[in-house]
Amino acid sequence: MAELLKGAPVAAAIGERTRKRAEALRARGIVPTLALVRVGARDADIYYERNAVKRCAALGAEARSVLLPEDVTEAALLETVGALNEDPSVHGVLIFRPLPRHISDARVRAALSPEKDVDGITDGSLAGVFTGSGRGFCPCTAQACAEILDHYGVDCAGKRAVVMGRSLVIGKPVSQLLLARNATVTVCHTGTRDLAEETRRADIVVTAVGRLHSLTADHVSPGQVVVDVGINTNAEGKMAGDADLAAVEPIVAAITPVPGGVGNVTTAVLVCHTVEAAERQNP
Amino acid sequence: MAELLKGAPVAAAIGERTRKRAEALRARGIVPTLALVRVGARDADIYYERNAVKRCAALGAEARSVLLPEDVTEAALLETVGALNEDPSVHGVLIFRPLPRHISDARVRAALSPEKDVDGITDGSLAGVFTGSGRGFCPCTAQACAEILDHYGVDCAGKRAVVMGRSLVIGKPVSQLLLARNATVTVCHTGTRDLAEETRRADIVVTAVGRLHSLTADHVSPGQVVVDVGINTNAEGKMAGDADLAAVEPIVAAITPVPGGVGNVTTAVLVCHTVEAAERQNP
Repeated sequence: MAELLKGAPVAAAIGERTRKRAEALRARGIVPTLALVRVGARDADIYYERNAVKRCAALGAEARSVLLPEDVTEAALLETVGALNEDPSVHGVLIFRPLPRHISDARVRAALSPEKDVDGITDGSLAGVFTGSGRGFCPCTAQACAEILDHYGVDCAGKRAVVMGRSLVIGKPVSQLLLARNATVTVCHTGTRDLAEETRRADIVVTAVGRLHSLTADHVSPGQVVVDVGINTNAEGKMAGDADLAAVEPIVAAITPVPGGVGNVTTAVLVCHTVEAAERQNP
Repeated sequence: MAELLKGAPVAAAIGERTRKRAEALRARGIVPTLALVRVGARDADIYYERNAVKRCAALGAEARSVLLPEDVTEAALLETVGALNEDPSVHGVLIFRPLPRHISDARVRAALSPEKDVDGITDGSLAGVFTGSGRGFCPCTAQACAEILDHYGVDCAGKRAVVMGRSLVIGKPVSQLLLARNATVTVCHTGTRDLAEETRRADIVVTAVGRLHSLTADHVSPGQVVVDVGINTNAEGKMAGDADLAAVEPIVAAITPVPGGVGNVTTAVLVCHTVEAAERQNP
């Protein structure tokens, strides 16, 4: 039976550190504040927003919801982002994506100040992830994967890590975080010839495919640590990860459950970034 | 006997395309111009500068050497960079590095406009390499590796590519270029446990270690394509790559020689970037 690497204790540990830093800021009269910019009313966004608001409250940060109608013009959204950039009482900005089709994602990303980009969508943030320095922040979900490994004492140095997926939200940034932890990192994707052969020889597998049962018994080996970033809906209509848990879990050494794994850590990282942003903006 | 993937034909092909574009710019009264900022008088810099100036002349671009003394202040260098950013007659800027120790590399990199950053040292350029878009340029040597593979018809899609080295100049950017070509990419480094095991199973090996004989017969397999980015000095005082050529060449399918390989393509890419920058700045 694999060890279940649950997200809650990781989130609690990040939360504890974050709460103390938020308190220190409040003692200086600074209330770390996160603006959540939501266009329209997608269920997944509302769900995430509710969790983020709750987490902010629990950790001593303030959440400010900025709601725009589905048919908002690009110009109005850009103006909103510009105003948040300029507002010294707002330290972090999360913009829910994907945006409606009539709005240019690239222009919105470019409009956000990297200093407030607490979910790592700007070029400034992504350059920092790539170079290992910089003014922005790592995408929260990618960092949540690394936080879980760190929390449970999984030493990446010298290990083979295989990342399934090459998105800018997870695959690419998490590969850089693993590389920074001295893993030998392989990035796999839809064009990979024999995926199972790659994943089987890894010590650490991060799956961010977003398809039910894309990690099966055939893909894994004894002793592995699996981080499952997938959020899918299974045949029973319940939330499930990329891994076929019933098949994979008896083989590997440890795996993050879905739900209750990476997803639980993401908002803690988001609030931590907001507090960090507030600190940087008020040195 | 391996096919020798020589750089000269690749450079000639890039040069031919670049020369035509430079001509078109000149017909519009725009002379694509590269500023080469050199602090001090290191042999390797002077050697590269001479090649770059020659290549510019051959392809219809202008090279402007900006020479500063070894003890130039950081402020003076930053002022020079700022002036080049503002100068509309300069389209590309190459700054020789490493800079003297009393100058902050990070501040100089941050001072350069990504639009003129034809050797990919700014965060703007590196974000573009990471995201696959953007305002800057890929580091020339990394791109030269990809140009060689493209020129000789090495299809990366679905292939296993192993990159030895994770620098921002070569290893990391070349890994992104290979990923963009749909290779399954593994980045190895000093912390990799069994390097030879990783490289032996690759279809394409890019070595950017910078140490003589860091790629031996033990590291390679039949059928492989090897791109050797190393520039080292051998026991006879001659230039040599990372690969032990005598041992590796009989085994692999193809390999870039040193000298005469990647190094020959780099300045062609540099001039191509300068012309591209001039086009972007004069739409």
